[in-house]
Amino acid sequence: MKASQFLISTLKEAPADAEVISHQLMTRAGMIKKLGAGIYTYMPMGLRVIQKVEAIVREEMNRAGAIECLMPMVQPGELWRETGRFDKMGPELLRIKDRHERDFVLQPTSEEAVTDIARQEFKSYKQLPRNLYQIQTKFRDERRPRFGLMRGREFIMKDAYSFDRDEASARQSYQKMAAAYRAIFDRFGLTYRAVAADSGSIGGDMSEEFQVIAATGEDAIVYSTGSCYAANMEKAESAPPKGPRPPAAQPMTPTPTPGKATCADVAELLKLPLQRTVKSLVLATDELDSAGEIARTRIWLLLLRGDHDMNEVKVGKVPGLADFRFASLAEILEHFGAEPGYLGPIGLKKPVTVVADREVAVMADWVCGANKKDFHITGVNWGRDLPEPDIVADLRNAVAGDPSPDGQGQLAIERGIEIGHIFYLGTKYSAAMNATFLDEDGKPKPFQMGCYGIGITRLSAAAIEQNHDARGIIWPDAIAPFTVVICPVGMDRSEAVRQAAESLHAELLAAGVDVILDDRGERPGVMFADWELIGVPHRVTIGERGLKEGQVEYQHRRDETAAKVPADGIAAFVKARLAA
Amino acid sequence: MKASQFLISTLKEAPADAEVISHQLMTRAGMIKKLGAGIYTYMPMGLRVIQKVEAIVREEMNRAGAIECLMPMVQPGELWRETGRFDKMGPELLRIKDRHERDFVLQPTSEEAVTDIARQEFKSYKQLPRNLYQIQTKFRDERRPRFGLMRGREFIMKDAYSFDRDEASARQSYQKMAAAYRAIFDRFGLTYRAVAADSGSIGGDMSEEFQVIAATGEDAIVYSTGSCYAANMEKAESAPPKGPRPPAAQPMTPTPTPGKATCADVAELLKLPLQRTVKSLVLATDELDSAGEIARTRIWLLLLRGDHDMNEVKVGKVPGLADFRFASLAEILEHFGAEPGYLGPIGLKKPVTVVADREVAVMADWVCGANKKDFHITGVNWGRDLPEPDIVADLRNAVAGDPSPDGQGQLAIERGIEIGHIFYLGTKYSAAMNATFLDEDGKPKPFQMGCYGIGITRLSAAAIEQNHDARGIIWPDAIAPFTVVICPVGMDRSEAVRQAAESLHAELLAAGVDVILDDRGERPGVMFADWELIGVPHRVTIGERGLKEGQVEYQHRRDETAAKVPADGIAAFVKARLAA
Repeated sequence: MKASQFLISTLKEAPADAEVISHQLMTRAGMIKKLGAGIYTYMPMGLRVIQKVEAIVREEMNRAGAIECLMPMVQPGELWRETGRFDKMGPELLRIKDRHERDFVLQPTSEEAVTDIARQEFKSYKQLPRNLYQIQTKFRDERRPRFGLMRGREFIMKDAYSFDRDEASARQSYQKMAAAYRAIFDRFGLTYRAVAADSGSIGGDMSEEFQVIAATGEDAIVYSTGSCYAANMEKAESAPPKGPRPPAAQPMTPTPTPGKATCADVAELLKLPLQRTVKSLVLATDELDSAGEIARTRIWLLLLRGDHDMNEVKVGKVPGLADFRFASLAEILEHFGAEPGYLGPIGLKKPVTVVADREVAVMADWVCGANKKDFHITGVNWGRDLPEPDIVADLRNAVAGDPSPDGQGQLAIERGIEIGHIFYLGTKYSAAMNATFLDEDGKPKPFQMGCYGIGITRLSAAAIEQNHDARGIIWPDAIAPFTVVICPVGMDRSEAVRQAAESLHAELLAAGVDVILDDRGERPGVMFADWELIGVPHRVTIGERGLKEGQVEYQHRRDETAAKVPADGIAAFVKARLAA
Repeated sequence: MKASQFLISTLKEAPADAEVISHQLMTRAGMIKKLGAGIYTYMPMGLRVIQKVEAIVREEMNRAGAIECLMPMVQPGELWRETGRFDKMGPELLRIKDRHERDFVLQPTSEEAVTDIARQEFKSYKQLPRNLYQIQTKFRDERRPRFGLMRGREFIMKDAYSFDRDEASARQSYQKMAAAYRAIFDRFGLTYRAVAADSGSIGGDMSEEFQVIAATGEDAIVYSTGSCYAANMEKAESAPPKGPRPPAAQPMTPTPTPGKATCADVAELLKLPLQRTVKSLVLATDELDSAGEIARTRIWLLLLRGDHDMNEVKVGKVPGLADFRFASLAEILEHFGAEPGYLGPIGLKKPVTVVADREVAVMADWVCGANKKDFHITGVNWGRDLPEPDIVADLRNAVAGDPSPDGQGQLAIERGIEIGHIFYLGTKYSAAMNATFLDEDGKPKPFQMGCYGIGITRLSAAAIEQNHDARGIIWPDAIAPFTVVICPVGMDRSEAVRQAAESLHAELLAAGVDVILDDRGERPGVMFADWELIGVPHRVTIGERGLKEGQVEYQHRRDETAAKVPADGIAAFVKARLAA
């Protein structure tokens, strides 16, 4: 490819609404152009990256035995009513009406459409297992689209769906996809981590996220420094605390803490470690009557160590708390007689259910609110000062330094960007849609399903979040818009430069290298700045002076300076660098 | 590829709503599956064809210097308001609202989006010419979607848009695309014709359709048997009649023609050739006042030879008739005093403008309605019996046997399916959207544009309309889902058959041949019927008996019978057939 035949369009400044580095750099490098909120044109430079990502995904999915199809972008509402998602999903599901006022949706995923195919096509257990996938434009009407391709409304996703006759086989299909995902992400040349994830309302214990590691990532990833344990923050287990509760050593003492409404402030005032404080969170659950009205409300007090954060997913798994909400101020005052900031489990006005985190349950001589404004209590001890907690459970987020739940090593935390997610679905969709096959015993059974997504466009942004510097993007070879750029200096003045550049271009092209020759006639400074912004990993600079000495310059995008390389061996040199 | 790893799903019967052969065969061959009216899933077998079509289009577009990008499927309504199309287009433009009640459309084409890119990117004449294209899902909310992929609502289209600084350059860009289209359609291996088309409301004289020739085509194509002249029926010129009008020979005579309201019936009754009759068509045009109310209506009488059909596009080009409508019965009775079937230009109640087709203008002793029920007039002659026509023009469709308008050969007519259309647009969109560049003289000028479409999914259907027989589809090699199928007979019983089949499969795969090995273990009859229905062009059958004699069978999909080929040379034999 010659640059003069391509559309290169770089910008000095990022648009004002570009909050994250990938959005800024993709816009500045001319990869994307905004058409509306969360809606982007993939410009030629950006589309090349997306097509390379797609090609790798397609190859590995095919290798894993998945079969590609393409389901419609516009799908009938009636199909989405079969699973209830037409009504249950929020406004991120864009519902539309055609000219005949019939309901349709723009697909955010395709579980319904693919299950409809399966129930027509896979009549017998002999046709199973099957895995159908597509690489297709999706639409989610995000309330606040932002961060460029990281949270757009229209995006490209690879979504695969497996159909099996029983759970054992479905678990195999799932593992096959897990392996394919590792093969895919290995090929991208990105640092990533596969982490256990919560399977949410779907149930089952199999769900993994694939996270591209990046300091700017939205997700916290918890991993062990001593084993392969890794999970997202929602899912990551905290190891149970070691040893028994120490004996009580201090008397229980109400203490004035005027204006100190946080554990940190109280610890500082009292000159105690934060780990000695306990924070109180008040939740409520509503029991509905047959008419759907609230019949009874139960109030819960959650106790967490002052330096710990509540994990909402874990709290939701405490029996009775599946549908919890935070209590209202009125409810808090009614039960505690004090405002948040000074709450605690001692001296309640009305009974509440006390749920202590496992760490809190083994604490002695702790500090909590006194249920009286501007007062806390020190030296509190279970059993002596208050009854043992009603429930003890893992309620908190894991923190760095926690022992790994598998007993090997400590937990560490890093940030990641989710670009893949695999799920064992069970019969959630097949049962709802009456999608069955005839099993060997002649009886109809619902398919055991799995679903497997990769955010193609999001991945291209995540790669940038992970790989950039002050000068611009740094693409891994596998998904760079071009792998090599040739920058001839003074090509219009020097026939030798032109010939050397053209000949290297032709030789690399013939070897199947994705090379671009910058024949725009720009000054070296402009050329270098453009290609460093765009992030092409390998650059060869050819100048008249160097040629006279039989030399050209090679610089990897991560190198600080260029290296001189004999001109007559440059093609082989570059090819060797690509293979490396 | 092995059939056991792929999704092969053939049907004996076509669905009841499949009216055309391509819809029937694509459904029966398991290429497409209906999800809603005019909305189809491309099943694995169908997607392979579509991807091959896309690859050829992409290669040739790139070769012609066009640059690929991808514009959003969901586009802001405000952009479509800039050209007025948001309001002007009919309900085939699907308008949707997002969660914030903002207007969007599902793109049927992308003129607005691409012009928006151009006005941001192409600031200077130095950046021109440019051609941007995409291969993207489109949506048109057809009132009555039908014929499978021939007239679906969601479909895949390649659309390209050229931007030039002046008309001369724009014409070159257009010609480059015309050449690229020929290269593309040549590669598909289909019989097609590029025909001149009317450029409609856009103006200009450059527009060509690419028509796949098929007896079932919706469009009539007119071409010369003696030159390369070809046009669609709307556009095809009728050569002017030869020689002057003969002198009048008969007296004008009113003649009873009870119940004979068509030219054919009248000619039969009077034992005259149909070519001696003249049909009368009554049109009206309304002149509006400043308030948009009808101020005045003008009535026009169109006269065409009895054996000719009116061409609405040509009629619309007669000065004053751009916005014609057919007259109401009340208007006809008011001006002619008779019902349709007995109308003519003689004895009018009120003045009408008489427009005669060129052929009618040179007729003598002709027959027309008498403006009296059940009566016609014979022996009518211009000048003697009525004034010369107010306007003489080409009003009719060309018919087979007409002289070619370029004077070389005669016109013939065949049926076609439009699968490509190229247009010179001028400044229609750029002017409306204020999309300008700075020209060499420092002044802003609107881009000269062209647009160029290929219906990717429609093409796959058109290929079938052209290439099928009673047994199924017959794909050209270039776009077949698989080029070669290997059918081993008794593979599960015979190790020799298995080895020969596997080895041929491996050898062809290694040679880059798109081959499928039918390892499903079906009986020969089932295998052959499936692959003939699916339309794979080359088939190799391997059986134990043949192998003992050192032979296998080869059959092209168009061959009536299989030929015996030495087993040890079969791979080379097949490769030679593919190259042919």
